[in-house]
Amino acid sequence: MTLESLPSDRDAASEPGAAPPANPLLVEVTRGAMVESGHRAAIALVDAGGSVVLSAGDIERPVYARSAIKSLQAIAMVESGAAEAYDVSTAELSMACASHSGEARHAETAEAWLARIGCSVADLECGPQLPSHEPSMIALLAAGKLPTAAHNNCSGKHSGFLTLARHLGVPAKGYVKYEHPVQQRILGVLEGMTGLDLGAAPRGVDGCGIPVIGMPLGNIALAMARLGAPDDQPETRQAACARIRAAVAQEPFMVAGSGRFDTLVMEKTGAKALIKTGAEGVYCASFPELGLGAAIKVDDGAGRAAEVLMGRLLCHLDILSEDDAAALGGVLTPLIHNRAGLAVGELRPAERIPF
Amino acid sequence: MTLESLPSDRDAASEPGAAPPANPLLVEVTRGAMVESGHRAAIALVDAGGSVVLSAGDIERPVYARSAIKSLQAIAMVESGAAEAYDVSTAELSMACASHSGEARHAETAEAWLARIGCSVADLECGPQLPSHEPSMIALLAAGKLPTAAHNNCSGKHSGFLTLARHLGVPAKGYVKYEHPVQQRILGVLEGMTGLDLGAAPRGVDGCGIPVIGMPLGNIALAMARLGAPDDQPETRQAACARIRAAVAQEPFMVAGSGRFDTLVMEKTGAKALIKTGAEGVYCASFPELGLGAAIKVDDGAGRAAEVLMGRLLCHLDILSEDDAAALGGVLTPLIHNRAGLAVGELRPAERIPF
Repeated sequence: MTLESLPSDRDAASEPGAAPPANPLLVEVTRGAMVESGHRAAIALVDAGGSVVLSAGDIERPVYARSAIKSLQAIAMVESGAAEAYDVSTAELSMACASHSGEARHAETAEAWLARIGCSVADLECGPQLPSHEPSMIALLAAGKLPTAAHNNCSGKHSGFLTLARHLGVPAKGYVKYEHPVQQRILGVLEGMTGLDLGAAPRGVDGCGIPVIGMPLGNIALAMARLGAPDDQPETRQAACARIRAAVAQEPFMVAGSGRFDTLVMEKTGAKALIKTGAEGVYCASFPELGLGAAIKVDDGAGRAAEVLMGRLLCHLDILSEDDAAALGGVLTPLIHNRAGLAVGELRPAERIPF
Repeated sequence: MTLESLPSDRDAASEPGAAPPANPLLVEVTRGAMVESGHRAAIALVDAGGSVVLSAGDIERPVYARSAIKSLQAIAMVESGAAEAYDVSTAELSMACASHSGEARHAETAEAWLARIGCSVADLECGPQLPSHEPSMIALLAAGKLPTAAHNNCSGKHSGFLTLARHLGVPAKGYVKYEHPVQQRILGVLEGMTGLDLGAAPRGVDGCGIPVIGMPLGNIALAMARLGAPDDQPETRQAACARIRAAVAQEPFMVAGSGRFDTLVMEKTGAKALIKTGAEGVYCASFPELGLGAAIKVDDGAGRAAEVLMGRLLCHLDILSEDDAAALGGVLTPLIHNRAGLAVGELRPAERIPF
């Protein structure tokens, strides 16, 4: 099966009353003697030529990839020359691809980057957000401070957008809007990487204000495959993809944070995998050595289930060795603890998972 | 259909490989032009005689009712005479049924109650928890304080357990354990209210340390019906149910908190409805005037979907009038806002919802 063989003109918005088919139950949540909850999902593993290597569920249904494709969005800043012109560092480039936890190093990196391009936190249009890293949140508030947009998990991505706006010589204000040259550049990158004409694709607004574009899950996986194996893309894009992959592999802390799945896993995989979580249960991955890309969407939007599926896929593909998996055990199939610290259940792949 | 006609010996733990049937898709999450995520669920609406008035999905599958049955657990404290002996106030009794937001009034109420029964926060076995009410959390931390077990959303329920232990003259320590007389009393109440023999029911440990018991959703709904219409229960229990219903109706703030669904809705319904959320997508309700009880379980554990379903049910039963629903609009079918405050989507009942 190749993506080209799939119908591409489906539009979820045109069938408001249709009940989508149930995707398979792929993740279970146990507590004591029972399975307490479960998560259905779709997953696509695709090569850079568009052949589907593995799939479960409906991979044609359009989904918003949310933050899981920040590495694709960062291509626009790098291939345009903006990253080089503004001396964007490896750590900063990794943070352009991040949904970070708002720890001190994240916020300080954003502030210094913005200052260097002649901007400030006030130019960020993502809004303030409390750090998701609880010790950092407590330390911030206990110091009598409130969070700024630099703590927003998307502050690196937005600093990248501002860097591109500066380089293009266009007004920074409104850089989150669909019509702004920054977002139009990114739309062009997404078209090239997914092989789709996205001009009429369903769209919405992300939590941080930028456009989200509905794309079939299989095509999102194709774009992630091309991020790792961009041979059919222009040379400047090939170089941009390589630089982005290297940056995330070298600075896995910047792309997420302390104790986070993305960070802990990429500390093990290095350049063998670029993985990225997104809101509403999306997870994307690029496996350059295998020439494959993956995209996961949990029907109900649960990130906890998307992480379990990504962990399972990494083991299935031997990107995580048995030793790695053992060392990461509690990360890949987390125990559920009560507030007193007792393990009372676990998240795990469902018994009938097809990989 | 009556609950008695349903097989009662199902055991989820005995069929680890069986894929449960897909419950119907009942809630949609939209963003811009698309449905982004969806939630499947089961719901049972039952009368006090055990007749099923309305149902969707599998209402025989055992579920943990979690915090949604705190009002049933509170019966043990009241019917034993402990609440009267220790002068438990209306606000305190409402808080015994609460998953509160850890606001100052909640924490202070727990502290004063504990002092009156000769206990302290150190006797609570639920563990500390940051207030879920963000302004309260920020105020607490900005004052250089850390949360205690009094801020734990279950601190009222646990204060009730300690009150019962005192009254029974048994050691307070270990009151969360399945074998402790407090939990055994509660198990007895649950058996009487659900009509089940729970001695061999699947069980686990809740987030706050107490036992959770797997019970078919239909029987949980039956217990909630009996809470509102306990005519077939012993007289002391009938009086306990009436006192609990009155306490929650009079103090809806104590059962949840500022801006919370339970509180806002019961400020409208008064004694016509006792509704209560629980972890992992459970919601229970008792409708005394109608003699009905309801129980909802969202397959994937999402509380956001359980709230939408409860709101829909309250409108379907005319417990919320059209005017009430209009006033609560954004509570019943919440808009999703991005961090800049723009409405970008909504939670709503799915088009094919059968009620």
